[in-house]
Amino acid sequence: MNQHVVVREIARAEAAHVTALGSYGVATVHEAQGRTGLLAAYMRPIYTGAALCGSAVTVLVPPGDNWMIHVAVEVCKEGDVLVVAPSSPCSDGYFGDLLATSLKARGVRGLIIDAGVRDVATLTEMKFPVWSKAVWAQGTVKASLGSVNVPIICAGQRIEPGDVIVADDDGVVAVARAEASTVAAAAKKRIDGEEAKRKRLAAGELGLDLYDMRGKLAALGLKYI
Amino acid sequence: MNQHVVVREIARAEAAHVTALGSYGVATVHEAQGRTGLLAAYMRPIYTGAALCGSAVTVLVPPGDNWMIHVAVEVCKEGDVLVVAPSSPCSDGYFGDLLATSLKARGVRGLIIDAGVRDVATLTEMKFPVWSKAVWAQGTVKASLGSVNVPIICAGQRIEPGDVIVADDDGVVAVARAEASTVAAAAKKRIDGEEAKRKRLAAGELGLDLYDMRGKLAALGLKYI
Amino acid sequence: MNQHVVVREIARAEAAHVTALGSYGVATVHEAQGRTGLLAAYMRPIYTGAALCGSAVTVLVPPGDNWMIHVAVEVCKEGDVLVVAPSSPCSDGYFGDLLATSLKARGVRGLIIDAGVRDVATLTEMKFPVWSKAVWAQGTVKASLGSVNVPIICAGQRIEPGDVIVADDDGVVAVARAEASTVAAAAKKRIDGEEAKRKRLAAGELGLDLYDMRGKLAALGLKYI
Amino acid sequence: MNQHVVVREIARAEAAHVTALGSYGVATVHEAQGRTGLLAAYMRPIYTGAALCGSAVTVLVPPGDNWMIHVAVEVCKEGDVLVVAPSSPCSDGYFGDLLATSLKARGVRGLIIDAGVRDVATLTEMKFPVWSKAVWAQGTVKASLGSVNVPIICAGQRIEPGDVIVADDDGVVAVARAEASTVAAAAKKRIDGEEAKRKRLAAGELGLDLYDMRGKLAALGLKYI
Amino acid sequence: MNQHVVVREIARAEAAHVTALGSYGVATVHEAQGRTGLLAAYMRPIYTGAALCGSAVTVLVPPGDNWMIHVAVEVCKEGDVLVVAPSSPCSDGYFGDLLATSLKARGVRGLIIDAGVRDVATLTEMKFPVWSKAVWAQGTVKASLGSVNVPIICAGQRIEPGDVIVADDDGVVAVARAEASTVAAAAKKRIDGEEAKRKRLAAGELGLDLYDMRGKLAALGLKYI
Amino acid sequence: MNQHVVVREIARAEAAHVTALGSYGVATVHEAQGRTGLLAAYMRPIYTGAALCGSAVTVLVPPGDNWMIHVAVEVCKEGDVLVVAPSSPCSDGYFGDLLATSLKARGVRGLIIDAGVRDVATLTEMKFPVWSKAVWAQGTVKASLGSVNVPIICAGQRIEPGDVIVADDDGVVAVARAEASTVAAAAKKRIDGEEAKRKRLAAGELGLDLYDMRGKLAALGLKYI
Repeated sequence: MNQHVVVREIARAEAAHVTALGSYGVATVHEAQGRTGLLAAYMRPIYTGAALCGSAVTVLVPPGDNWMIHVAVEVCKEGDVLVVAPSSPCSDGYFGDLLATSLKARGVRGLIIDAGVRDVATLTEMKFPVWSKAVWAQGTVKASLGSVNVPIICAGQRIEPGDVIVADDDGVVAVARAEASTVAAAAKKRIDGEEAKRKRLAAGELGLDLYDMRGKLAALGLKYI
Repeated sequence: MNQHVVVREIARAEAAHVTALGSYGVATVHEAQGRTGLLAAYMRPIYTGAALCGSAVTVLVPPGDNWMIHVAVEVCKEGDVLVVAPSSPCSDGYFGDLLATSLKARGVRGLIIDAGVRDVATLTEMKFPVWSKAVWAQGTVKASLGSVNVPIICAGQRIEPGDVIVADDDGVVAVARAEASTVAAAAKKRIDGEEAKRKRLAAGELGLDLYDMRGKLAALGLKYI
Repeated sequence: MNQHVVVREIARAEAAHVTALGSYGVATVHEAQGRTGLLAAYMRPIYTGAALCGSAVTVLVPPGDNWMIHVAVEVCKEGDVLVVAPSSPCSDGYFGDLLATSLKARGVRGLIIDAGVRDVATLTEMKFPVWSKAVWAQGTVKASLGSVNVPIICAGQRIEPGDVIVADDDGVVAVARAEASTVAAAAKKRIDGEEAKRKRLAAGELGLDLYDMRGKLAALGLKYI
Repeated sequence: MNQHVVVREIARAEAAHVTALGSYGVATVHEAQGRTGLLAAYMRPIYTGAALCGSAVTVLVPPGDNWMIHVAVEVCKEGDVLVVAPSSPCSDGYFGDLLATSLKARGVRGLIIDAGVRDVATLTEMKFPVWSKAVWAQGTVKASLGSVNVPIICAGQRIEPGDVIVADDDGVVAVARAEASTVAAAAKKRIDGEEAKRKRLAAGELGLDLYDMRGKLAALGLKYI
Repeated sequence: MNQHVVVREIARAEAAHVTALGSYGVATVHEAQGRTGLLAAYMRPIYTGAALCGSAVTVLVPPGDNWMIHVAVEVCKEGDVLVVAPSSPCSDGYFGDLLATSLKARGVRGLIIDAGVRDVATLTEMKFPVWSKAVWAQGTVKASLGSVNVPIICAGQRIEPGDVIVADDDGVVAVARAEASTVAAAAKKRIDGEEAKRKRLAAGELGLDLYDMRGKLAALGLKYI
Repeated sequence: MNQHVVVREIARAEAAHVTALGSYGVATVHEAQGRTGLLAAYMRPIYTGAALCGSAVTVLVPPGDNWMIHVAVEVCKEGDVLVVAPSSPCSDGYFGDLLATSLKARGVRGLIIDAGVRDVATLTEMKFPVWSKAVWAQGTVKASLGSVNVPIICAGQRIEPGDVIVADDDGVVAVARAEASTVAAAAKKRIDGEEAKRKRLAAGELGLDLYDMRGKLAALGLKYI
């Protein structure tokens, strides 16, 4: 039941859908799939303006042990995003600039890690985006096994290998691989609708009128004084 | 006892006092009113260098429900600051760029929210300052009522409609409307005194001497070795 | 047992070793001394890119009382770093721009404080780096004694006066004064080795091969699918 | 603005209303006043089964300084509850068995403190109930002033001297003095209604039917599969 | 993608396996399935000595809204355990003694809730065990839909309807329905082995010898001084 | 610098002083040594009424790895207390009833661990007291080395092998071995003084008078209204 495995080949979503989802941003994608898929609020980017989209290569690591991240590099492909979760909560700095150099050489777009990261000045210079629970220099060992490309829970969200990951200043959202196309379409529709609303709101129209809320508010008993 | 109300008209402090308080900054205003009025340390600006002052329009919202923020927009005036508190702790992203567009169209200067905010990249571009407990894309619903312009507890501080809000990189402070003039005067006095001290300290004079502390320290028994 | 003392003269590490340690950065120094010496992950710089090295002048302060920081200024010398810990957990803003002005006049390089700091906009302008547990305007009093230049526990790490402090975006690490030379040498060796690895990884070589991990992974039972 | 005062005489609610509110318990009283008045979830009793009701004598204390609690004892009367809040967050053990002995001698029913408490084994033996943020032996000093019987914010709730405090295993709720009678009546009505419901639910009737929810759920689109 | 559904019929594990797993306890079951399946450490029982096992009926609820728990009651059967997770983090008191009365009437064994619970004195008297993130009287509304018997993430663990839940003073563990038999067998084996070890350890034999660790420790370089 | 060592023989305080310190309790001992030596407030006993005193055998463990606890058992003697700290923060359940059985066979009085513990129902039955940061079934591995009987930082306090540990419901305090006698004497004096005060307070005398505070309060400007 706890055999440690590395799955070499995984299915990925179509590149066009991944790119489209990335262009809509986290908040919109999250809304478009019914307010689901968001990682916990403590996952923050290491620099302002960081943004990425890609296919998840998942890594399950023991606390304080980053060995499996080295193993995972080999199975990553152009356009992937490494998604790392420890088997019990840990804030150690599992990842630094050497691993980033290696991932960048393979075309990996960034890292999502429910733990700590270090060398963030260098990672920022390299423009290698990371969303993490902590920034901390605390080192790790290489003594115990974990798994690569198995389903994991990362920051409160289940992520399967090949799921689409979108991340920006608002956080990180995962979209199931099979739903990438549908969610992208729903997100596009939402974006299109928002543009018109933005103009009307900027012109001073009230959301109360734009969204036709007054009747429902009155029905529930809201009193104006 | 739990009737949901919207108070349309509130009294506000004189603009000159509001502007003066804003120019002194949070730390000085907080000291000037006897080290009171500060919101909790977890209230952080979404971008470095954000600063605002204005009159509070208060909003009490249910957890995960941002409907009343839409209601509050209508009662905001030029120079106001929206101050939002959930009725139980919540980190959801109650507020994004569409609401900011609407508030900006009415001259609102920014948002203080004891919960989450999203679309922060766009809010930063718009230079719409927000101090919040969290940055998170998690969406909200519009199903339950709250109140607008009632006294609220926001991040551990009681705020009444029309109180003066000052916020900068050091946090957020509230000044009771009726005390705006007195606190502004006390803050000015403090600022004036500090400038002279800054010069003497920069010249190498010790605070121990400048503040005449040596005698009191000795009296309490401090030993030098 | 709780006599409050100020130790005026302390031993410091050789300047060359301090400078060398600073040039290697927190993550490398921490690894070079066997993954020890790191302060807790919640210690964060007030601005991105902050970095310092220097000799610790330690200050033990009561909760909500910054009097001893004023006392400590007098015993600081060019190249020192002030390291402050409260006797029980506290997030108050113990330190602002006036104290920084005073410390700067004496050549102090920055502040490490397991509590809060304020006036961070001004401190950033002054390029006076601070690593703290909180940014908060909450003021303090001057009523009770503490000690200067006694061993303290700061953010989970014991620090003795004269220990070398290195801080950057990855956190804060302390090196025992007596080990400064040895750790600097070990860090240099590490840095030299990393450069070669970085090039090979950038060229696409896998860490699995570079670090010769495949055999050990197989021996522990890792399965590839 | 920060003058330290002790208000000797305060108005209190009628004893009958206080007793009635205590008999209904925290959850019911909180519901009866429109889901308001509750202190934060981290306020926990020091022993299981602790319960009290009484009139608030409020104390504002500096961080790490319990002097004003000694001052407050003198103004307490039979049936009061001491409600203590620090001016900035603190977990120190402000209160122990000697203070409890003194309060008990005056007929005080217990303590609500948004900080720490110690000697809990003895307090439990004495059956002196305390709700606190922490249990911790960390001592305090007696060096700075605060105030007694001024409005305070305790664990996120504003409490005025004389407000009714009800506390049990579910937490702590405050009822404004002027509303004690109305809330007691509303709570009684609620309790009476619940007894009937409890019997029907125990007999196997479903809440869906008892509360007539099926139609509304269907209208909102809930699907059964 | 966010359709709200109630799945009326779910598959459950065989009663014998559920009972067996319950008899082994959380720590053993967690080890027996390879150190997986454990809910987060903050899930604590409302009374000491609480213990249960059963089949999960899962409930996804909006923040501050317990309507779907009422819906879930109807689909529960004898031997079930209600497992509730909010769609975003919340500590409100979703559950009290009326709901417990209703569940008990249907033979439900207890509640696991990644949120708050109230009426804990009554629940303890009723011997209705609950593991929760918080004990808090804060009330909820009945305004928005969620789902019943869909896969949920509860306290960091994915739980599917029908999974076996085991809970005791050490926490809560979930076992996939399909693996109940295998895990029960592995747990039994583990328990049997432990009894013999306990006797030898109680007699003073060292774990170092019992587990034959000395050689491996020496090989890794452990030095005795 | 990171050599892993086990120190077999350590000096311990005289049994009489250890016993005396235990009889005074944590709060008194902490006060008697000048309000120092207390571990962090999050260290809580697994059962109410737990209390111990003894000599510290210290263990430094890697995150998620309890191997060194097995190593430490061998060097423990009658009257010792095991004090365990992870090299980076961790809440895993490092310790359970088998280890407790082994320690009990050697006369060890209990465990202080800045991490998690499990099997707490059994530990409670065995009356083996534990103070920990968490109760959690999460298992650990045996793959990496740490050290035994080196100075450690446990829950914010530096502890050297042989230091006296006193723990009860108020928390955990450490007394330096060399100061055991002096602190015990100071604690005794304190206890003796308290008994007289308790009687006077119980008789209704005010602390304000007993401690002669009125003059000093007036001098600082406290106003009675």
